[in-house]
Amino acid sequence: MSNQQVIIAELPTDSLEPRHFALQDVPMPQAGPNEVLLKVLLMSIDAANRSWMQGATYRAAVNAGDAMPTYAICEVVESNTSRVAVGDIVACEAVWANYITQPGHKVIKMPKVPTLSNLISVFGIAGKTAFHGLMTIGQPLAGETVLVSAAAGSVGGYVGQIAKALGCHVVGIAGGPDKCRWVVEALGFDACIDYREPGLTKALRRVCPGGVDVYFDNVGGEILESALFSMNERGRVVCCGAISQYDGGAPSGPRNLPGLVVVKRLRMEGFIVTDFVKDDAKATRALQHWVSTGQIKVFEDIVDGLENAPQALIGLLAGDNKGKRMVRVAPDPS
Amino acid sequence: MSNQQVIIAELPTDSLEPRHFALQDVPMPQAGPNEVLLKVLLMSIDAANRSWMQGATYRAAVNAGDAMPTYAICEVVESNTSRVAVGDIVACEAVWANYITQPGHKVIKMPKVPTLSNLISVFGIAGKTAFHGLMTIGQPLAGETVLVSAAAGSVGGYVGQIAKALGCHVVGIAGGPDKCRWVVEALGFDACIDYREPGLTKALRRVCPGGVDVYFDNVGGEILESALFSMNERGRVVCCGAISQYDGGAPSGPRNLPGLVVVKRLRMEGFIVTDFVKDDAKATRALQHWVSTGQIKVFEDIVDGLENAPQALIGLLAGDNKGKRMVRVAPDPS
Repeated sequence: MSNQQVIIAELPTDSLEPRHFALQDVPMPQAGPNEVLLKVLLMSIDAANRSWMQGATYRAAVNAGDAMPTYAICEVVESNTSRVAVGDIVACEAVWANYITQPGHKVIKMPKVPTLSNLISVFGIAGKTAFHGLMTIGQPLAGETVLVSAAAGSVGGYVGQIAKALGCHVVGIAGGPDKCRWVVEALGFDACIDYREPGLTKALRRVCPGGVDVYFDNVGGEILESALFSMNERGRVVCCGAISQYDGGAPSGPRNLPGLVVVKRLRMEGFIVTDFVKDDAKATRALQHWVSTGQIKVFEDIVDGLENAPQALIGLLAGDNKGKRMVRVAPDPS
Repeated sequence: MSNQQVIIAELPTDSLEPRHFALQDVPMPQAGPNEVLLKVLLMSIDAANRSWMQGATYRAAVNAGDAMPTYAICEVVESNTSRVAVGDIVACEAVWANYITQPGHKVIKMPKVPTLSNLISVFGIAGKTAFHGLMTIGQPLAGETVLVSAAAGSVGGYVGQIAKALGCHVVGIAGGPDKCRWVVEALGFDACIDYREPGLTKALRRVCPGGVDVYFDNVGGEILESALFSMNERGRVVCCGAISQYDGGAPSGPRNLPGLVVVKRLRMEGFIVTDFVKDDAKATRALQHWVSTGQIKVFEDIVDGLENAPQALIGLLAGDNKGKRMVRVAPDPS
């Protein structure tokens, strides 16, 4: 067994590039008392990876020389704890590597599911982020209009499908005509606007004639600004991410803020998926139900090979994924 | 009896100036069936007056040729309704004029108080806006830090005094050393920062060493941006106004938004005082209590004469008032 990891060779000051990463041979880690040795199977690739390189957020900053942190699905290879046994599948904080160790109390044993990747997509961070943000902060009602940016992305696709299942009018925003068509045809949104075309504010008015009640914001910047113009009184803005602001360039704030927040009595609220751990079982139950009825379709964008993780992240930031992106480091155990 | 009114002669495209207004002789209005003829005694002067000139908000836009709308305290001069009698003091929507008429159901009979101007300041829009915004949206707890911009203004001064009464650490932001001293010495804030000095973000860190839990935002713009940097996790931003954005110049949005809203899980929410009419009695009871204990001191900035209303508003936008600004159109009836 050999072990490799991907470290940050140099912190980016502008757009992320392959040269900011390095693949290294490292010694196989040793599981100490109460620890487990884990084989990394699947790593979640998230826009948040990039934001961690900008400084301390809800976690410590990632610095040059560090292995990139990640949420991962792993197989237990060696266990010095009674919590999990060899062969168990667990979810945990990991790094971009083949093997890692963790204290036994920091890994969560996963149910056996037919497709392990679902533990990262619909039943993992993506699905739970969509569910908790939409239900707890957005609180959409049947008949209301829900607008979702990064609609072809991992979270946005589930937000829209959940909102459809709840009886809402659902409009997406995505980049390019292909993605927009896919959002409508594959994910079942009522409409999808291409933000690369000029006139986003007008286009939103056309496809949301009754205004927007809930805007699920994954991007920030000018798209947030346009969305605010379309909001109805007492609308809710679910602040989930700001991908447009992570990867270089001067940040641009929505210029109509806070004016429109006052006039329309809007509520904007941020969250992190782990804030709602206590409701995770509820989320899983609902998501399983909608998957079983076909109201939620699962799309995954799996890149093979640890060495391809940097490019998978760079591509995600450029918007070239459809559905939840992840890296398969090792095949599912049979 | 003669009647005059102040109209908008020309809508401003940049800063408001006296030439945008005109004083006109107009006929004495006639009270029709179920209407009342009212003598305007006191008119509230608010930053919102300026925002109404920018287009439709929560009310129709104010246009050239219109008399400026205002909230006013009036004396009933003639009554064709059983709801109020001649000599009653009422609050209502009015315009900048000596006399107006209103349907009987649109005026609210006021209690007899020793000082009528208190019905516009602490027991009027200013006090109620402070109370409802702080209590319902800000929800401060004893020991938390409350930051208030436009702290020497009508609303901000009450926000800080209420927060002190609740046991909070209270910090103001105001323009110029005189106002800042007044906010601390007269209103009892723990500290007050002069936003005209460079280094607001650093200054906030110094006087709010534990971070800010509630920011009551009356101004928007760069001050909001600085405040967001100081917010604690799960902090609340009460969006009450955006005076910095009303009077000319290109709007500037907080560049750290929505990034910090996500990372810190902030909640930003706008409101208008009339949203909380159902809780007005509760507000009045609490404000009366704090005034009676001396925990709230009432400061009013009264300008005499209808003809001086334009300058009173222009000065308010430039920040030259301490406490609630109003115009006395006619003396209190004895």
